[in-house]
Amino acid sequence: MSLTVAVRGAWRATGARWMLVLVSLCVCVCVCRAESPQEEEDSAMENIVTEKRAEESHRQDSADLLIFILLLTLTILTIWLFKHRRFRFLHETGLAMIYGLLVGVVLRYGIHMPRDGASVILNCNVNASPATVLVNVSGKFYEYTLKRVISSSGNKVDDVSDNENEMLRKVTFDPEVFFNILLPPIIFHAGYSLKRRHFFRNMGSILAYAFLGTVISTFIIGLLMYGTVTLMKRVGQMGGDFFFTDCLFFGAIVSATDPVTVLAIFHELQVDADLYALLFGESVLNDAVAVVLSSSIVAYQPAGDNSHTFEGMALLKSFGMFLGVFSGSFSLGVVTGIVTALISKFTKLRDFPLLETALFFLMSWSTFLLAEACGFTGVVAVLFCGITQAHYTFNNLSPESQDRTKQLFELLNFLAENFIFSYMGLTLFTFHNHVFNPMFIVGAFLAVFLGRALNIYPLSLLLNLGRRHKIRSNFQHMMMFAGLRGAMTFALSIRDTATYARQMMFSTTLLIVFFTVWICGGGTTQMLSCQRIRVGVDSDQDNSMSLGEGPERRSTKHESAWLFRIWYNFDHNYLKPILTHSGPPLTATLPPFCGPLARFLTSPLAFENECQLKDDDSDLILNDDINLAYGDITVNTDGTGALTSSAGFASGLSSDDLDRELTYGDSEVVMRGTRLVLPMDDSEPSLKDPRIHF
Amino acid sequence: MSLTVAVRGAWRATGARWMLVLVSLCVCVCVCRAESPQEEEDSAMENIVTEKRAEESHRQDSADLLIFILLLTLTILTIWLFKHRRFRFLHETGLAMIYGLLVGVVLRYGIHMPRDGASVILNCNVNASPATVLVNVSGKFYEYTLKRVISSSGNKVDDVSDNENEMLRKVTFDPEVFFNILLPPIIFHAGYSLKRRHFFRNMGSILAYAFLGTVISTFIIGLLMYGTVTLMKRVGQMGGDFFFTDCLFFGAIVSATDPVTVLAIFHELQVDADLYALLFGESVLNDAVAVVLSSSIVAYQPAGDNSHTFEGMALLKSFGMFLGVFSGSFSLGVVTGIVTALISKFTKLRDFPLLETALFFLMSWSTFLLAEACGFTGVVAVLFCGITQAHYTFNNLSPESQDRTKQLFELLNFLAENFIFSYMGLTLFTFHNHVFNPMFIVGAFLAVFLGRALNIYPLSLLLNLGRRHKIRSNFQHMMMFAGLRGAMTFALSIRDTATYARQMMFSTTLLIVFFTVWICGGGTTQMLSCQRIRVGVDSDQDNSMSLGEGPERRSTKHESAWLFRIWYNFDHNYLKPILTHSGPPLTATLPPFCGPLARFLTSPLAFENECQLKDDDSDLILNDDINLAYGDITVNTDGTGALTSSAGFASGLSSDDLDRELTYGDSEVVMRGTRLVLPMDDSEPSLKDPRIHF
Repeated sequence: MSLTVAVRGAWRATGARWMLVLVSLCVCVCVCRAESPQEEEDSAMENIVTEKRAEESHRQDSADLLIFILLLTLTILTIWLFKHRRFRFLHETGLAMIYGLLVGVVLRYGIHMPRDGASVILNCNVNASPATVLVNVSGKFYEYTLKRVISSSGNKVDDVSDNENEMLRKVTFDPEVFFNILLPPIIFHAGYSLKRRHFFRNMGSILAYAFLGTVISTFIIGLLMYGTVTLMKRVGQMGGDFFFTDCLFFGAIVSATDPVTVLAIFHELQVDADLYALLFGESVLNDAVAVVLSSSIVAYQPAGDNSHTFEGMALLKSFGMFLGVFSGSFSLGVVTGIVTALISKFTKLRDFPLLETALFFLMSWSTFLLAEACGFTGVVAVLFCGITQAHYTFNNLSPESQDRTKQLFELLNFLAENFIFSYMGLTLFTFHNHVFNPMFIVGAFLAVFLGRALNIYPLSLLLNLGRRHKIRSNFQHMMMFAGLRGAMTFALSIRDTATYARQMMFSTTLLIVFFTVWICGGGTTQMLSCQRIRVGVDSDQDNSMSLGEGPERRSTKHESAWLFRIWYNFDHNYLKPILTHSGPPLTATLPPFCGPLARFLTSPLAFENECQLKDDDSDLILNDDINLAYGDITVNTDGTGALTSSAGFASGLSSDDLDRELTYGDSEVVMRGTRLVLPMDDSEPSLKDPRIHF
Repeated sequence: MSLTVAVRGAWRATGARWMLVLVSLCVCVCVCRAESPQEEEDSAMENIVTEKRAEESHRQDSADLLIFILLLTLTILTIWLFKHRRFRFLHETGLAMIYGLLVGVVLRYGIHMPRDGASVILNCNVNASPATVLVNVSGKFYEYTLKRVISSSGNKVDDVSDNENEMLRKVTFDPEVFFNILLPPIIFHAGYSLKRRHFFRNMGSILAYAFLGTVISTFIIGLLMYGTVTLMKRVGQMGGDFFFTDCLFFGAIVSATDPVTVLAIFHELQVDADLYALLFGESVLNDAVAVVLSSSIVAYQPAGDNSHTFEGMALLKSFGMFLGVFSGSFSLGVVTGIVTALISKFTKLRDFPLLETALFFLMSWSTFLLAEACGFTGVVAVLFCGITQAHYTFNNLSPESQDRTKQLFELLNFLAENFIFSYMGLTLFTFHNHVFNPMFIVGAFLAVFLGRALNIYPLSLLLNLGRRHKIRSNFQHMMMFAGLRGAMTFALSIRDTATYARQMMFSTTLLIVFFTVWICGGGTTQMLSCQRIRVGVDSDQDNSMSLGEGPERRSTKHESAWLFRIWYNFDHNYLKPILTHSGPPLTATLPPFCGPLARFLTSPLAFENECQLKDDDSDLILNDDINLAYGDITVNTDGTGALTSSAGFASGLSSDDLDRELTYGDSEVVMRGTRLVLPMDDSEPSLKDPRIHF
């Protein structure tokens, strides 16, 4: 037995060893890449040279990507080590940034590789830059596509060529990659894994924080930064233009809080579900608001010669654009979600989980593309598509597809997130046009702090007037503290780094992200215990306990009652029956003259459930003193996954009934009477296993 | 009740309606795209114009991608309809091609959109085309990157510009996308889902078909095409150069048979496992051989002025390159597989399935990148990486990760495959430089037929000399018939379409793919019944039946015995214990002086299994008259997935013992004595549920 123990001891040390091997491998690849010989043959055949060059470029691209893959691998192994040892001071995203930083330092200072002299300067006598250029090289025509604007003044080109390390240039991704490839899965996952029960219960507050809060924060930060910038100009510290719209833009991009880091810790520690819902809902929605807000600010263009004066018309146009783009993206997302739900309801795709998963994936992706093609914002559309899919389509999927889709998007989210954060770390050293201005940075940190404070505290005060279940001051402090900036802020700031102002913003934003992720993210556990916020709360138990508290808890419904009542009625009586196999048959909820349509739209399962329901119903009334004739009943999914339906077919719920239902109505027959849940959580796609969710 | 029946009747019709809606949507998008206004503002601000153009281009890209996504969605829905109605004449890949064709027709003939005049012709006085070009447009510098060579003679440029529809140009993907994005998951999945038991049993034959067969086929087709081409030149039907190397290249690309279509039907119908293994193994491996072979043929460059003469040195160099690239890719794939296995063994990543899956995915992807960065062939590396992962790493994964990885790669494979096939259909109408030459096409069809025949029949004859379990003539006919050409052939032929010869090859290849997928793929079921090949065979039952046949079946081992014996011994005694938690402890198999190392490398689980084994062992001897002291014993995976180990710790198996083991040795204790299986199938990642696998 002592042998076994010894072996295990030796084993434990191997984890660290793997790290070492990988780190050195990572560095190796960097170095090898730089030293890979530039094969230059004197062969007369030009074709071969071109082919060789293309091949060489492809090999370098592969090697560049390999660096990131190894970085991610390293991050995963270290995360495992941290989780294994229950080390919570540094989250995986913070870790990814540190590794990115290290590789960035190696690339920047460890390797010197001159820019290859292959690029040639040509002159062109057109006004605007063409999208494609045909170049005549000794009789052959080559097509070139526009990649980027290098500089606005001619004399800087040599600087750029000399200054810029070929390697660093290669390792830099097109910023649009973030928006079009990496952000969508993150945002979709956020929508798809939203805990809808708590989300809807706190909907009013969440909307207030997300919309009002983000706007407040944007303007506060914008104004403060304008002050800072004016001061800087006076002191002579400003090396370029910085207009008020730039300040507002900066305000918008740093107002997008990141749901990742803090919430992973919250999830692990099982923090109070309401606080979780408030923070998660706010961060997810304010990302969407910030994206649209920032693009509206960019679109602000007064008609006059001076494009930086105030003009009512342009402002109105920007505001209209905000509304238009936001609502357009919202509706597009919801519509594709609904179409997917309808397809999955009206076909028997569930017999073939692979087809079902593929369809789900493609439809969700097409939301993004459709929104972008229509000129709306893809990430916003994808967010609402995710929420709709979770609310409706998820119910129609076979159990296997439910698992598959959850796991797929979880994996994509994980990879994309860690990629973004390690790229962030890398960028601090590899981005070439950093403008670090101490005054601007100090001003920005102050502004971000104040912006967050003037968002959370006054709004909480206001919301508490309407809420009976108050947002307590320790919750407010926690929300204040948990305003991390992450992937969205980064993606917005790297999108355009052409001007001096944008470069300064980008550098400052990076520092803000580093600070908040490392300091605020790392201190979450301390802050939670310092603010005496309950951890280890099972959200279900939490509810039953609260129910015991009686009148105080019961009236949480008031906070969103009026808005919610209408929505719930509509959703339950019409949308759920149309879009899923659950709910009351439409023949019962629609007016009689819609008979044939109602029969067509209602799933045969709903009719079957109706019969079943009657039995269950009587059962309910026998067992429970609360009248649940109108309550929700979940018919649990059977082995083949054929049924996941909740019924409760009252075409017009009386206000009293709804009150009762919102408070006591329960969606699970087994737990009836012991839990306070809103009726829409009958099949939440959130993960049950805390290990799976990071 | 009659109501319910009526409703269900109405329901059934909705499937077809959805199709209609989607088809029209698809066409709509095409048309809208074409009509989207080219916003041209007279604004003086050039920046805005550039931005607008970039935005417009992004929107168009999104719309283009959307067309494909809708196409895929449509394909999925139709596949479902076919599967639902058990309609087997057209496989999903054939269907994807048809839809692609339809969209191609719409794009080609339905929409006329002039190429925008944005591209400008510049002259450049360097010898070779630079990789990047800086263009000075009225004081601003723009960076352009090389996209492609348009033509080799100047006077053709106007033709190109006029002729080429902007829309069609946009819908065309960079051919490298196929090689770098779409093929890897397909090939990896093929390796990962290889049924290793039957594969290893027929390894000798499979290797013969894959290597020898592909080379035979390449040269036969090459020679026949050279004859055709010579004839065409005589008749004056040839409009450009076509050298012998081109003919050989054509031979190599059309020798890659596709495992997809036929095998999906085989899988569904549960065709004889040996035939399945032969065909699957051959198609998978010959893809790898064809890729490397074709690149070796391209690399054939005699030193003299005339680059199309025969030269021994260059031939030798090409041959050396073939060997080098193939073995390099092979080893790289195996090495990354082994590294992943080691990481997953020596860390406790299995406690966190998400991390584990992510690591698995990244490591498998890095194989591809590493191979490409080293100048080897990524797809070949990925194939062998997949096989290694399935053989070793899969055993170390937690059950959840096993499911996740299988499902993930299944989905990726499905999407990539259908994308490629619908793109193929699209290309027939959207590709602009088609060269359809009737003589060449007829010659090519004949050559492909003969090449396949001279590959299968003579090799089978030869192999049957060594095999006791003959490859019967109906199997041979089936293999002949099942030589479909698919994704790999297409990807290889579209990779380079610059010259006249390559264009003619591409067009002909497309027709060959269409013909084989539609006719041969569609006729598989008929051919199976015509050749009286057993269907509905459970591979396990098959084995037990065969065992009953006694001596005839027993000697299947002979076919691969000598090669296989060494491999099996080594794998079982050293590789499995080092790389997985299973196998005999290394302390038992390694010589005594390696003691400490052996103890370090052996998983603690293996020691535990050893104790367990002794009990099982005695149990075995009591229950079975065959001496299984050296046999394999599988300790089945328990609830937490901790154990999947097979033990049998003889450091030197005597030939007789091995004989017995190969014949009677069984890897599952429960079924002992009733099945003939080779011992490596203890945890096959192939899917148990036939519905999942297409």
